[in-house]
Amino acid sequence: MAIIRSATESDRDAIWNIFHEVVAAGDTYAFDPQMSRQDALAYWFSDDPHNYVADADGKTIGTYILKPNQTGPGSHVANAAFMVPSSARGQGVGRSMAEHSLEEARRLGFSAMQFNFVVSTNESAIHLWEQLGFKIVGTLPGAFRHPEKGFVDVYVMFRSLM
Amino acid sequence: MAIIRSATESDRDAIWNIFHEVVAAGDTYAFDPQMSRQDALAYWFSDDPHNYVADADGKTIGTYILKPNQTGPGSHVANAAFMVPSSARGQGVGRSMAEHSLEEARRLGFSAMQFNFVVSTNESAIHLWEQLGFKIVGTLPGAFRHPEKGFVDVYVMFRSLM
Repeated sequence: MAIIRSATESDRDAIWNIFHEVVAAGDTYAFDPQMSRQDALAYWFSDDPHNYVADADGKTIGTYILKPNQTGPGSHVANAAFMVPSSARGQGVGRSMAEHSLEEARRLGFSAMQFNFVVSTNESAIHLWEQLGFKIVGTLPGAFRHPEKGFVDVYVMFRSLM
Repeated sequence: MAIIRSATESDRDAIWNIFHEVVAAGDTYAFDPQMSRQDALAYWFSDDPHNYVADADGKTIGTYILKPNQTGPGSHVANAAFMVPSSARGQGVGRSMAEHSLEEARRLGFSAMQFNFVVSTNESAIHLWEQLGFKIVGTLPGAFRHPEKGFVDVYVMFRSLM
């Protein structure tokens, strides 16, 4: 069972290893697959202290960030992004982090959570988000260039926290 | 008839005046209505050289930015944001800038354009986008806190450039 905690500076290596593996695969995130360590960590730590890691057996096997999806009059809706390395998939780490993020978002006073860019071919993620109460509220036609499947649709997913 | 051109450093005052008026009203953009001049201009000029102004009769009466909506495998979809001060509305400046942005986006090689956050009460903007070929592809329930109308829906709008 993974333990989820806030990330610290000493988690940078572990986060970068996960981030790089996930983004280099190029099939789930709209980040440049060649994104540098510096840019990746600047992005992931820009939401400090709302960046988290999941540990199991002394190893970091997941990371996520939580933030307002918009500022000002849109800041009541949270956004989160999750990464799990391939070696740790299928063990419920994503689900544990997602449940943790929903609790954290409520605790921080957010009234909803939105995912802006869920690639339609990422079926396990979509299945998990739907199990956790998210609905597809938008479809962006061909908005993602999948390395094998070409241009595929992207979903916007949303759930209330009220 | 407005002339649209790339913004320069000497447009900073005019852009800030427009930005501040639009954002302080708090009814169309998810920016903090109190956003500082420094933060506003840093945001608007971060897309340099793809930030533009519309001039008419020696006065700047509109501004817009154009950028990739996502990076990496999502970078073929453009995003744009437009601002017109209340004194210049109803004269077609928004339409001229929007048409200019579609041409620019095609010229830059984008294959689609997406607006992530069109407040549903902003009927004149929605009407214009629909006239220009955009469709509502998503609805974010209550995602905007309108200063008079409370929580209102927000639309995601999209059009192909192919």
